[in-house]
Amino acid sequence: MADRAEPRRRRGRPRRETGDAGPGARERILLAARAEFAERGYDKASIRGIAKRAKVDPALVHHYFGTKDDLFEAAMQVSFAPAMDLPDVALSGPEEETGERLTRFIFGVWENALTREPLLAIVRSAMNNEAAAAIFRRMITRNLLKRMAPDLPGPDGELRMELAVAQLVGTAMLRYIIKLEPIASAEVEELVQRLAPVVQHHLTGAAPKGSE
Amino acid sequence: MADRAEPRRRRGRPRRETGDAGPGARERILLAARAEFAERGYDKASIRGIAKRAKVDPALVHHYFGTKDDLFEAAMQVSFAPAMDLPDVALSGPEEETGERLTRFIFGVWENALTREPLLAIVRSAMNNEAAAAIFRRMITRNLLKRMAPDLPGPDGELRMELAVAQLVGTAMLRYIIKLEPIASAEVEELVQRLAPVVQHHLTGAAPKGSE
Repeated sequence: MADRAEPRRRRGRPRRETGDAGPGARERILLAARAEFAERGYDKASIRGIAKRAKVDPALVHHYFGTKDDLFEAAMQVSFAPAMDLPDVALSGPEEETGERLTRFIFGVWENALTREPLLAIVRSAMNNEAAAAIFRRMITRNLLKRMAPDLPGPDGELRMELAVAQLVGTAMLRYIIKLEPIASAEVEELVQRLAPVVQHHLTGAAPKGSE
Repeated sequence: MADRAEPRRRRGRPRRETGDAGPGARERILLAARAEFAERGYDKASIRGIAKRAKVDPALVHHYFGTKDDLFEAAMQVSFAPAMDLPDVALSGPEEETGERLTRFIFGVWENALTREPLLAIVRSAMNNEAAAAIFRRMITRNLLKRMAPDLPGPDGELRMELAVAQLVGTAMLRYIIKLEPIASAEVEELVQRLAPVVQHHLTGAAPKGSE
């Protein structure tokens, strides 16, 4: 993606005069990547565009983060960070209130546009691009399923978690992306009250007959 | 979108020699549109590409279907057709089994790739484009909410329907698009058994305290 006129630069430590590295360059690139992926989606985002936003040479982006895939995953880690406490939040406190704690925590992340938009961008990208979907699968599995499922009753913890996630992600889609009424304008508290029992049921409710 | 070299053709009845109308041209265009939107998404699909698939002049596409938006809506009607019986299926039979009838019917549509792919394409387009989202909202409202909600108990039928749809659409997303395991490989019957009580709860269960 570098200008054709320039000689091809070798990977590795960037040269002083183009690097503009300085303290914070890595963080600047990461924030620029998050913004670029959020606005343009995985397909249309480019290393070049991200470098421009971060005011660094594209070689420096490659130097710190490798390929576009690697950078997407690193940017996703940043976008996911607000949700990282979810397993701790969900698993601390009485088991019969897990559904409500989890639902309330998720809406806390979503109702703040600063934390919501990067997460929605990930979902959008994952729905339209297989590379993005693979990274999304890995993140959900590592950060959510592996950490929470072992603490749920029964041998089917991962499937239970996913059905609860399906309810919550489906709600986010209709409310924040499709903006279908009345769900788009419903009070958060009303949604929490309606969804918490369902999330609780998925996580700890009786399994259907014959499925154990 | 017509070739620059050609003189601009006026809207209206297409000329005999370019029209290639004949019986079935309208249906051919509609199927071509459904395929083009499904493969390329709303943004990248073009009237020109659809005309090419259907082996007709682009003017004929405009003649029959108007703008790209109008054509998208008409193609969506075709894609939605297999789901159109959903309200009748859900509302016929004992009320306490509505959740199961609805869930089973939906998985019947989804498990067949021929009916699933066009529906997933609509969801993808609606998540990435506001024009497509507006058409999706209108279709859900007209075909599902207005037909089913009045038959549900209580004044909050539309919100109940949407929360049930959120559970099912979220499940479809994780299973068929993101392909997250174990939900992607779970047996349909297992998913129906687990989701039917939740859908039933949304549709007819007790409303949360203080929300009536």
